Amino acid sequence: MEKNKVGEFHFVTESYLTDFRGRITIPMIGTYLLHAASCHAADRGFGYNDMTERHTAWVLSRLAIEMTSYPAMSESVTLYTWVDEVGKLFTSRCFELVNGEGKTFGFARSIWAAIDMETRRPTLLDVEGLSAYITDRPCPIEKPGKIAPVENNTSGEPYRVKYSDLDVNGHLNSIKYMEHLLDLFDISLFREKEISRFEIAYQSEGKYGMELTLHNQEVSLDKYNMAICNDGKAISRAAVTWI
Amino acid sequence: MEKNKVGEFHFVTESYLTDFRGRITIPMIGTYLLHAASCHAADRGFGYNDMTERHTAWVLSRLAIEMTSYPAMSESVTLYTWVDEVGKLFTSRCFELVNGEGKTFGFARSIWAAIDMETRRPTLLDVEGLSAYITDRPCPIEKPGKIAPVENNTSGEPYRVKYSDLDVNGHLNSIKYMEHLLDLFDISLFREKEISRFEIAYQSEGKYGMELTLHNQEVSLDKYNMAICNDGKAISRAAVTWI
Repeated sequence: MEKNKVGEFHFVTESYLTDFRGRITIPMIGTYLLHAASCHAADRGFGYNDMTERHTAWVLSRLAIEMTSYPAMSESVTLYTWVDEVGKLFTSRCFELVNGEGKTFGFARSIWAAIDMETRRPTLLDVEGLSAYITDRPCPIEKPGKIAPVENNTSGEPYRVKYSDLDVNGHLNSIKYMEHLLDLFDISLFREKEISRFEIAYQSEGKYGMELTLHNQEVSLDKYNMAICNDGKAISRAAVTWI
Repeated sequence: MEKNKVGEFHFVTESYLTDFRGRITIPMIGTYLLHAASCHAADRGFGYNDMTERHTAWVLSRLAIEMTSYPAMSESVTLYTWVDEVGKLFTSRCFELVNGEGKTFGFARSIWAAIDMETRRPTLLDVEGLSAYITDRPCPIEKPGKIAPVENNTSGEPYRVKYSDLDVNGHLNSIKYMEHLLDLFDISLFREKEISRFEIAYQSEGKYGMELTLHNQEVSLDKYNMAICNDGKAISRAAVTWI
Protein backbone atom coordinates (compact mmCIF):
# COMPACT_ATOMS: atom_id res chain seq x y z
CA MET A 1 0.00 0.00 0.00
CA GLU A 2 2.78 2.36 0.99
CA LYS A 3 4.55 1.44 -2.27
CA ASN A 4 1.43 2.20 -4.29
CA LYS A 5 1.48 5.75 -2.95
CA VAL A 6 4.79 6.59 -4.59
CA GLY A 7 4.81 6.78 -8.37
CA GLU A 8 7.96 5.78 -10.26
CA PHE A 9 8.68 7.09 -13.75
CA HIS A 10 11.59 6.57 -16.12
CA PHE A 11 13.02 9.00 -18.66
CA VAL A 12 16.05 9.06 -20.87
CA THR A 13 17.40 12.56 -21.49
CA GLU A 14 17.49 13.38 -25.18
CA SER A 15 20.29 15.15 -27.03
CA TYR A 16 18.06 17.59 -28.92
CA LEU A 17 16.35 18.69 -25.70
CA THR A 18 19.45 19.70 -23.75
CA ASP A 19 20.73 23.25 -23.63
CA PHE A 20 23.97 24.50 -25.19
CA ARG A 21 25.95 22.89 -22.34
CA GLY A 22 24.50 19.48 -23.21
CA ARG A 23 22.62 19.48 -19.90
CA ILE A 24 18.92 19.15 -19.27
CA THR A 25 17.19 22.39 -18.36
CA ILE A 26 14.82 23.55 -15.64
CA PRO A 27 11.90 23.68 -18.13
CA MET A 28 12.75 20.12 -19.23
CA ILE A 29 12.75 18.97 -15.60
CA GLY A 30 9.47 20.83 -15.16
CA THR A 31 8.07 18.83 -18.10
CA TYR A 32 9.17 15.55 -16.45
CA LEU A 33 7.56 16.62 -13.17
CA LEU A 34 4.26 17.59 -14.79
CA HIS A 35 4.20 14.37 -16.78
CA ALA A 36 4.79 12.26 -13.65
CA ALA A 37 2.27 14.28 -11.61
CA SER A 38 -0.37 13.91 -14.31
CA CYS A 39 0.16 10.12 -14.72
CA HIS A 40 0.38 9.52 -10.95
CA ALA A 41 -2.88 11.41 -10.38
CA ALA A 42 -4.63 9.71 -13.33
CA ASP A 43 -3.66 6.23 -12.06
CA ARG A 44 -5.37 7.08 -8.77
CA GLY A 45 -8.59 8.54 -10.17
CA PHE A 46 -7.57 12.21 -10.02
CA GLY A 47 -6.27 12.76 -13.55
CA TYR A 48 -7.10 15.39 -16.15
CA ASN A 49 -10.12 13.44 -17.44
CA ASP A 50 -11.43 12.65 -13.94
CA MET A 51 -11.21 16.33 -13.04
CA THR A 52 -12.88 17.38 -16.32
CA GLU A 53 -15.83 15.07 -15.56
CA ARG A 54 -16.33 17.06 -12.35
CA HIS A 55 -15.96 20.33 -14.36
CA THR A 56 -12.72 21.06 -12.54
CA ALA A 57 -9.08 21.26 -13.53
CA TRP A 58 -5.80 21.06 -11.65
CA VAL A 59 -3.84 24.30 -11.53
CA LEU A 60 -0.19 24.38 -10.55
CA SER A 61 0.15 27.07 -7.92
CA ARG A 62 3.76 26.86 -6.75
CA LEU A 63 6.78 24.81 -7.71
CA ALA A 64 10.30 24.63 -6.24
CA ILE A 65 13.07 22.57 -7.82
CA GLU A 66 16.46 21.99 -6.19
CA MET A 67 19.23 20.35 -8.16
CA THR A 68 22.70 19.25 -7.09
CA SER A 69 23.66 18.31 -10.66
CA TYR A 70 22.15 18.28 -14.13
CA PRO A 71 22.17 15.07 -16.22
CA ALA A 72 23.80 15.20 -19.62
CA MET A 73 22.16 13.70 -22.72
CA SER A 74 21.21 10.01 -23.03
CA GLU A 75 21.20 9.48 -19.26
CA SER A 76 18.47 7.56 -17.45
CA VAL A 77 16.46 9.45 -14.90
CA THR A 78 14.12 7.86 -12.38
CA LEU A 79 11.54 10.21 -10.97
CA TYR A 80 9.55 9.43 -7.83
CA THR A 81 6.46 11.41 -6.95
CA TRP A 82 4.08 11.32 -4.00
CA VAL A 83 1.51 13.44 -2.16
CA ASP A 84 2.60 14.70 1.28
CA GLU A 85 -0.27 17.01 2.27
CA VAL A 86 -3.90 17.55 1.31
CA GLY A 87 -5.89 20.59 2.39
CA LYS A 88 -9.30 21.96 1.49
CA LEU A 89 -7.93 24.15 -1.29
CA PHE A 90 -4.38 22.95 -1.90
CA THR A 91 -2.55 19.67 -2.20
CA SER A 92 1.21 19.28 -1.96
CA ARG A 93 3.14 16.86 -4.19
CA CYS A 94 6.85 16.02 -3.86
CA PHE A 95 9.39 14.65 -6.31
CA GLU A 96 12.79 13.01 -6.12
CA LEU A 97 15.10 12.71 -9.15
CA VAL A 98 17.59 9.84 -9.23
CA ASN A 99 20.24 9.18 -11.89
CA GLY A 100 21.28 5.92 -13.56
CA GLU A 101 23.74 5.11 -10.75
CA GLY A 102 21.00 5.43 -8.14
CA LYS A 103 22.26 8.80 -6.89
CA THR A 104 19.67 11.46 -6.03
CA PHE A 105 20.42 14.70 -7.89
CA GLY A 106 17.29 16.71 -7.22
CA PHE A 107 14.09 17.20 -5.28
CA ALA A 108 11.01 19.25 -6.05
CA ARG A 109 7.87 20.38 -4.26
CA SER A 110 4.66 21.51 -5.90
CA ILE A 111 1.41 23.00 -4.64
CA TRP A 112 -1.76 22.42 -6.65
CA ALA A 113 -5.25 23.84 -6.50
CA ALA A 114 -8.38 22.73 -8.34
CA ILE A 115 -10.45 25.30 -10.18
CA ASP A 116 -13.99 25.20 -11.48
CA MET A 117 -13.74 25.14 -15.26
CA GLU A 118 -16.52 27.69 -15.79
CA THR A 119 -15.81 30.24 -13.08
CA ARG A 120 -12.00 29.64 -13.07
CA ARG A 121 -12.25 30.05 -9.29
CA PRO A 122 -10.74 27.62 -6.73
CA THR A 123 -12.99 24.75 -5.66
CA LEU A 124 -12.87 22.48 -2.62
CA LEU A 125 -10.75 19.37 -3.02
CA ASP A 126 -11.89 15.80 -2.31
CA VAL A 127 -9.82 15.76 0.87
CA GLU A 128 -10.86 12.27 1.91
CA GLY A 129 -10.21 10.70 -1.49
CA LEU A 130 -6.85 12.40 -1.96
CA SER A 131 -5.70 11.76 1.61
CA ALA A 132 -5.67 8.00 0.97
CA TYR A 133 -2.45 8.59 -0.97
CA ILE A 134 -0.56 10.73 1.54
CA THR A 135 2.84 9.39 2.57
CA ASP A 136 5.54 10.84 4.79
CA ARG A 137 8.48 9.99 2.52
CA PRO A 138 10.99 12.78 3.14
CA CYS A 139 11.54 15.67 0.72
CA PRO A 140 14.41 17.63 2.27
CA ILE A 141 13.96 20.98 0.52
CA GLU A 142 12.26 24.15 1.63
CA LYS A 143 8.59 24.54 0.68
CA PRO A 144 7.83 27.14 -1.97
CA GLY A 145 6.60 30.34 -0.33
CA LYS A 146 6.06 34.04 -0.78
CA ILE A 147 8.43 35.82 -3.19
CA ALA A 148 9.12 39.53 -2.76
CA PRO A 149 8.07 41.78 -5.68
CA VAL A 150 10.75 43.25 -7.96
CA GLU A 151 8.62 44.72 -10.71
CA ASN A 152 8.79 48.24 -9.32
CA ASN A 153 12.60 48.21 -9.17
CA THR A 154 13.25 47.11 -12.75
CA SER A 155 12.13 48.32 -16.15
CA GLY A 156 11.11 44.91 -17.53
CA GLU A 157 11.50 43.23 -20.89
CA PRO A 158 8.35 43.30 -23.03
CA TYR A 159 6.85 39.99 -24.21
CA ARG A 160 3.57 39.26 -26.00
CA VAL A 161 1.93 35.85 -25.44
CA LYS A 162 1.97 33.79 -28.64
CA TYR A 163 0.34 30.62 -30.05
CA SER A 164 3.25 28.38 -28.96
CA ASP A 165 2.91 29.65 -25.39
CA LEU A 166 -0.64 28.38 -24.95
CA ASP A 167 -1.75 25.25 -23.13
CA VAL A 168 -4.96 23.28 -23.59
CA ASN A 169 -6.86 25.83 -21.50
CA GLY A 170 -5.73 28.62 -23.86
CA HIS A 171 -3.45 30.09 -21.20
CA LEU A 172 0.29 30.65 -21.00
CA ASN A 173 1.73 27.14 -20.45
CA SER A 174 3.40 26.58 -17.02
CA ILE A 175 6.65 25.53 -18.70
CA LYS A 176 6.74 28.64 -20.90
CA TYR A 177 6.73 30.91 -17.84
CA MET A 178 9.99 29.19 -16.87
CA GLU A 179 11.52 29.54 -20.33
CA HIS A 180 10.73 33.23 -20.62
CA LEU A 181 12.10 33.93 -17.14
CA LEU A 182 15.34 31.98 -17.67
CA ASP A 183 15.88 33.85 -20.93
CA LEU A 184 16.35 37.04 -18.88
CA PHE A 185 19.67 35.73 -17.55
CA ASP A 186 22.75 36.43 -19.61
CA ILE A 187 24.27 33.36 -21.25
CA SER A 188 27.48 33.90 -19.24
CA LEU A 189 25.68 32.89 -16.02
CA PHE A 190 24.75 29.55 -17.61
CA ARG A 191 28.37 29.09 -18.68
CA GLU A 192 29.84 29.79 -15.24
CA LYS A 193 27.18 28.63 -12.78
CA GLU A 194 24.29 26.27 -12.22
CA ILE A 195 20.84 26.92 -10.86
CA SER A 196 20.67 25.27 -7.43
CA ARG A 197 17.08 26.32 -6.68
CA PHE A 198 14.31 27.50 -8.97
CA GLU A 199 11.02 28.49 -7.41
CA ILE A 200 7.95 29.83 -9.18
CA ALA A 201 4.49 31.01 -8.10
CA TYR A 202 1.68 31.06 -10.64
CA GLN A 203 -0.71 33.83 -9.64
CA SER A 204 -2.94 34.39 -12.62
CA GLU A 205 -3.31 33.23 -16.17
CA GLY A 206 -1.46 34.65 -19.16
CA LYS A 207 -3.73 34.87 -22.22
CA TYR A 208 -3.11 35.05 -25.98
CA GLY A 209 -1.83 38.43 -27.11
CA MET A 210 -1.36 39.68 -23.54
CA GLU A 211 1.43 42.25 -23.27
CA LEU A 212 3.69 41.14 -20.47
CA THR A 213 6.79 42.60 -18.88
CA LEU A 214 9.49 40.27 -17.56
CA HIS A 215 11.43 41.47 -14.52
CA ASN A 216 14.65 40.28 -12.91
CA GLN A 217 16.69 41.66 -10.02
CA GLU A 218 19.69 40.28 -8.12
CA VAL A 219 18.51 40.68 -4.52
CA SER A 220 21.64 39.24 -2.90
CA LEU A 221 24.75 37.49 -4.23
CA ASP A 222 23.59 34.86 -6.78
CA LYS A 223 19.96 35.21 -5.69
CA TYR A 224 17.46 36.71 -8.10
CA ASN A 225 13.80 37.53 -7.74
CA MET A 226 11.76 37.69 -10.90
CA ALA A 227 8.26 38.62 -11.96
CA ILE A 228 6.00 38.41 -14.98
CA CYS A 229 3.57 41.32 -15.02
CA ASN A 230 0.59 42.38 -17.03
CA ASP A 231 -0.58 45.96 -16.64
CA GLY A 232 1.77 46.40 -13.67
CA LYS A 233 0.29 43.42 -11.79
CA ALA A 234 2.33 40.24 -11.30
CA ILE A 235 0.84 37.10 -12.87
CA SER A 236 3.86 35.10 -11.71
CA ARG A 237 6.87 35.50 -9.44
CA ALA A 238 10.03 33.42 -9.31
CA ALA A 239 13.16 33.16 -7.20
CA VAL A 240 16.37 31.69 -8.60
CA THR A 241 19.55 30.78 -6.73
CA TRP A 242 22.78 30.19 -8.71
CA ILE A 243 25.80 28.32 -7.42
CA MET B 1 16.36 -7.88 -42.37
CA GLU B 2 13.74 -5.73 -44.12
CA LYS B 3 11.97 -5.39 -40.76
CA ASN B 4 15.18 -4.28 -39.05
CA LYS B 5 15.42 -1.37 -41.49
CA VAL B 6 12.20 0.24 -40.26
CA GLY B 7 12.27 1.66 -36.74
CA GLU B 8 9.06 1.61 -34.69
CA PHE B 9 8.52 4.05 -31.83
CA HIS B 10 5.61 4.58 -29.46
CA PHE B 11 4.44 7.80 -27.88
CA VAL B 12 1.46 8.87 -25.85
CA THR B 13 0.45 12.49 -26.42
CA GLU B 14 0.46 14.47 -23.20
CA SER B 15 -2.14 16.98 -22.08
CA TYR B 16 0.31 19.72 -21.08
CA LEU B 17 2.07 19.54 -24.46
CA THR B 18 -0.96 20.11 -26.66
CA ASP B 19 -1.92 23.54 -27.97
CA PHE B 20 -5.04 25.50 -26.93
CA ARG B 21 -7.17 23.23 -29.13
CA GLY B 22 -6.02 20.19 -27.17
CA ARG B 23 -4.20 18.93 -30.28
CA ILE B 24 -0.54 18.08 -30.71
CA THR B 25 1.44 20.68 -32.60
CA ILE B 26 3.85 20.69 -35.53
CA PRO B 27 6.83 21.36 -33.17
CA MET B 28 5.69 18.44 -30.98
CA ILE B 29 5.53 16.18 -34.03
CA GLY B 30 8.97 17.51 -35.00
CA THR B 31 10.23 16.46 -31.56
CA TYR B 32 8.82 12.93 -32.05
CA LEU B 33 10.46 12.72 -35.49
CA LEU B 34 13.86 13.88 -34.22
CA HIS B 35 13.66 11.49 -31.29
CA ALA B 36 12.84 8.54 -33.56
CA ALA B 37 15.50 9.55 -36.11
CA SER B 38 18.12 9.84 -33.41
CA CYS B 39 17.29 6.46 -31.79
CA HIS B 40 16.96 4.69 -35.14
CA ALA B 41 20.37 6.00 -36.25
CA ALA B 42 22.00 5.20 -32.89
CA ASP B 43 20.69 1.61 -32.97
CA ARG B 44 22.44 1.18 -36.33
CA GLY B 45 25.80 2.73 -35.43
CA PHE B 46 25.11 6.22 -36.80
CA GLY B 47 23.91 8.00 -33.67
CA TYR B 48 24.99 11.25 -32.04
CA ASN B 49 27.85 9.58 -30.15
CA ASP B 50 29.05 7.58 -33.17
CA MET B 51 29.14 10.76 -35.24
CA THR B 52 30.94 12.67 -32.47
CA GLU B 53 33.67 10.00 -32.39
CA ARG B 54 34.28 10.79 -36.06
CA HIS B 55 34.23 14.55 -35.24
CA THR B 56 31.04 14.92 -37.23
CA ALA B 57 27.43 15.75 -36.41
CA TRP B 58 24.14 15.25 -38.18
CA VAL B 59 22.46 18.41 -39.37
CA LEU B 60 18.82 18.50 -40.38
CA SER B 61 18.67 20.20 -43.75
CA ARG B 62 15.03 19.93 -44.83
CA LEU B 63 11.86 18.57 -43.31
CA ALA B 64 8.33 18.23 -44.68
CA ILE B 65 5.41 17.06 -42.55
CA GLU B 66 1.94 16.27 -43.97
CA MET B 67 -0.92 15.61 -41.60
CA THR B 68 -4.50 14.53 -42.31
CA SER B 69 -5.47 14.90 -38.64
CA TYR B 70 -3.91 15.86 -35.33
CA PRO B 71 -4.19 13.54 -32.31
CA ALA B 72 -5.75 14.91 -29.13
CA MET B 73 -4.20 14.37 -25.70
CA SER B 74 -3.56 10.91 -24.19
CA GLU B 75 -3.66 9.18 -27.58
CA SER B 76 -1.13 6.55 -28.61
CA VAL B 77 1.00 7.33 -31.62
CA THR B 78 3.15 4.80 -33.44
CA LEU B 79 5.90 6.32 -35.52
CA TYR B 80 7.76 4.38 -38.20
CA THR B 81 11.01 5.69 -39.64
CA TRP B 82 13.32 4.43 -42.36
CA VAL B 83 16.02 5.60 -44.75
CA ASP B 84 15.01 5.75 -48.42
CA GLU B 85 18.06 7.35 -50.08
CA VAL B 86 21.73 7.87 -49.29
CA GLY B 87 23.97 10.20 -51.29
CA LYS B 88 27.50 11.48 -50.82
CA LEU B 89 26.35 14.57 -48.93
CA PHE B 90 22.72 13.94 -48.01
CA THR B 91 20.61 11.13 -46.70
CA SER B 92 16.84 11.01 -46.84
CA ARG B 93 14.74 9.63 -43.98
CA CYS B 94 10.97 9.06 -44.06
CA PHE B 95 8.36 8.79 -41.34
CA GLU B 96 4.82 7.48 -41.03
CA LEU B 97 2.54 8.39 -38.11
CA VAL B 98 -0.18 5.93 -37.11
CA ASN B 99 -2.85 6.41 -34.43
CA GLY B 100 -4.12 3.97 -31.79
CA GLU B 101 -6.70 2.51 -34.22
CA GLY B 102 -3.97 1.72 -36.74
CA LYS B 103 -4.95 4.60 -39.05
CA THR B 104 -2.16 6.59 -40.70
CA PHE B 105 -2.60 10.31 -40.02
CA GLY B 106 0.69 11.70 -41.26
CA PHE B 107 3.88 11.27 -43.22
CA ALA B 108 7.14 13.17 -43.13
CA ARG B 109 10.34 13.38 -45.14
CA SER B 110 13.66 14.70 -43.91
CA ILE B 111 17.01 15.39 -45.54
CA TRP B 112 20.15 15.22 -43.41
CA ALA B 113 23.78 16.21 -43.96
CA ALA B 114 26.81 15.50 -41.81
CA ILE B 115 29.13 18.34 -40.90
CA ASP B 116 32.66 18.36 -39.58
CA MET B 117 32.46 19.57 -35.99
CA GLU B 118 35.45 21.90 -36.27
CA THR B 119 34.94 23.47 -39.70
CA ARG B 120 31.09 23.22 -39.55
CA ARG B 121 31.31 22.35 -43.27
CA PRO B 122 29.56 19.38 -44.90
CA THR B 123 31.53 16.11 -44.95
CA LEU B 124 31.16 13.00 -47.09
CA LEU B 125 28.78 10.39 -45.70
CA ASP B 126 29.60 6.70 -45.18
CA VAL B 127 27.47 5.80 -48.21
CA GLU B 128 28.19 2.07 -48.04
CA GLY B 129 27.47 1.79 -44.32
CA LEU B 130 24.28 3.83 -44.47
CA SER B 131 23.02 2.16 -47.66
CA ALA B 132 22.68 -1.18 -45.83
CA TYR B 133 19.55 0.29 -44.23
CA ILE B 134 17.80 1.65 -47.33
CA THR B 135 14.30 0.36 -47.89
CA ASP B 136 11.69 1.23 -50.53
CA ARG B 137 8.73 1.43 -48.13
CA PRO B 138 6.46 4.07 -49.68
CA CYS B 139 6.21 7.63 -48.34
CA PRO B 140 3.50 9.22 -50.49
CA ILE B 141 4.25 12.91 -49.92
CA GLU B 142 6.21 15.39 -51.99
CA LYS B 143 9.90 15.74 -51.15
CA PRO B 144 10.94 18.99 -49.49
CA GLY B 145 12.43 21.34 -52.08
CA LYS B 146 13.29 24.93 -52.85
CA ILE B 147 11.11 27.60 -51.19
CA ALA B 148 10.74 31.02 -52.83
CA PRO B 149 12.03 34.01 -50.80
CA VAL B 150 9.51 36.35 -49.17
CA GLU B 151 11.81 38.46 -47.01
CA ASN B 152 11.91 41.34 -49.49
CA ASN B 153 8.12 41.58 -49.66
CA THR B 154 7.43 41.76 -45.94
CA SER B 155 8.71 43.90 -43.11
CA GLY B 156 9.45 41.08 -40.66
CA GLU B 157 8.94 40.64 -36.94
CA PRO B 158 12.14 41.12 -34.91
CA TYR B 159 13.37 38.27 -32.70
CA ARG B 160 16.61 37.89 -30.71
CA VAL B 161 17.93 34.35 -30.09
CA LYS B 162 17.75 33.46 -26.40
CA TYR B 163 19.11 30.80 -24.02
CA SER B 164 16.00 28.59 -24.34
CA ASP B 165 16.40 28.58 -28.13
CA LEU B 166 19.83 26.93 -28.08
CA ASP B 167 20.64 23.29 -28.76
CA VAL B 168 23.66 21.32 -27.61
CA ASN B 169 25.75 22.87 -30.40
CA GLY B 170 24.92 26.36 -29.12
CA HIS B 171 22.72 27.07 -32.14
CA LEU B 172 19.05 27.85 -32.57
CA ASN B 173 17.29 24.52 -31.97
CA SER B 174 15.53 23.00 -35.04
CA ILE B 175 12.23 22.85 -33.17
CA LYS B 176 12.43 26.51 -32.09
CA TYR B 177 12.59 27.64 -35.73
CA MET B 178 9.18 25.98 -36.13
CA GLU B 179 7.74 27.57 -32.98
CA HIS B 180 8.85 31.08 -33.91
CA LEU B 181 7.49 30.71 -37.46
CA LEU B 182 4.11 29.33 -36.37
CA ASP B 183 3.78 32.20 -33.91
CA LEU B 184 3.56 34.57 -36.89
CA PHE B 185 0.11 33.20 -37.76
CA ASP B 186 -2.85 34.79 -36.10
CA ILE B 187 -4.62 32.58 -33.56
CA SER B 188 -7.80 32.70 -35.68
CA LEU B 189 -6.13 30.56 -38.36
CA PHE B 190 -5.48 27.83 -35.76
CA ARG B 191 -9.11 28.08 -34.66
CA GLU B 192 -10.56 27.73 -38.15
CA LYS B 193 -8.06 25.60 -40.06
CA GLU B 194 -5.39 22.94 -39.78
CA ILE B 195 -1.91 22.82 -41.23
CA SER B 196 -1.95 20.13 -43.92
CA ARG B 197 1.71 20.56 -44.92
CA PHE B 198 4.61 22.18 -43.10
CA GLU B 199 7.95 22.32 -44.85
CA ILE B 200 11.16 23.89 -43.58
CA ALA B 201 14.69 24.34 -44.93
CA TYR B 202 17.54 24.97 -42.49
CA GLN B 203 20.14 27.04 -44.34
CA SER B 204 22.47 28.35 -41.66
CA GLU B 205 22.78 28.39 -37.92
CA GLY B 206 21.11 30.87 -35.60
CA LYS B 207 23.42 31.88 -32.74
CA TYR B 208 22.87 33.34 -29.25
CA GLY B 209 21.92 37.00 -29.32
CA MET B 210 21.49 37.04 -33.10
CA GLU B 211 18.94 39.62 -34.24
CA LEU B 212 16.55 37.86 -36.56
CA THR B 213 13.57 38.97 -38.58
CA LEU B 214 10.66 36.58 -39.10
CA HIS B 215 8.77 36.89 -42.39
CA ASN B 216 5.45 35.53 -43.57
CA GLN B 217 3.50 36.04 -46.78
CA GLU B 218 0.37 34.40 -48.16
CA VAL B 219 1.53 33.49 -51.69
CA SER B 220 -1.75 31.89 -52.78
CA LEU B 221 -4.98 30.94 -51.01
CA ASP B 222 -4.02 29.21 -47.71
CA LYS B 223 -0.39 28.85 -48.80
CA TYR B 224 2.26 30.84 -46.98
CA ASN B 225 5.97 31.18 -47.55
CA MET B 226 8.07 32.17 -44.57
CA ALA B 227 11.67 33.09 -43.84
CA ILE B 228 13.93 33.69 -40.87
CA CYS B 229 16.61 36.23 -41.76
CA ASN B 230 19.71 37.62 -40.17
CA ASP B 231 21.18 40.75 -41.70
CA GLY B 232 18.84 40.41 -44.67
CA LYS B 233 20.01 36.86 -45.45
CA ALA B 234 17.70 33.87 -44.89
CA ILE B 235 18.93 31.31 -42.38
CA SER B 236 15.73 29.31 -42.84
CA ARG B 237 12.72 29.19 -45.16
CA ALA B 238 9.42 27.49 -44.67
CA ALA B 239 6.22 26.82 -46.61
CA VAL B 240 2.93 26.17 -44.86
CA THR B 241 -0.36 24.99 -46.37
CA TRP B 242 -3.60 25.35 -44.36
CA ILE B 243 -6.78 23.45 -45.02
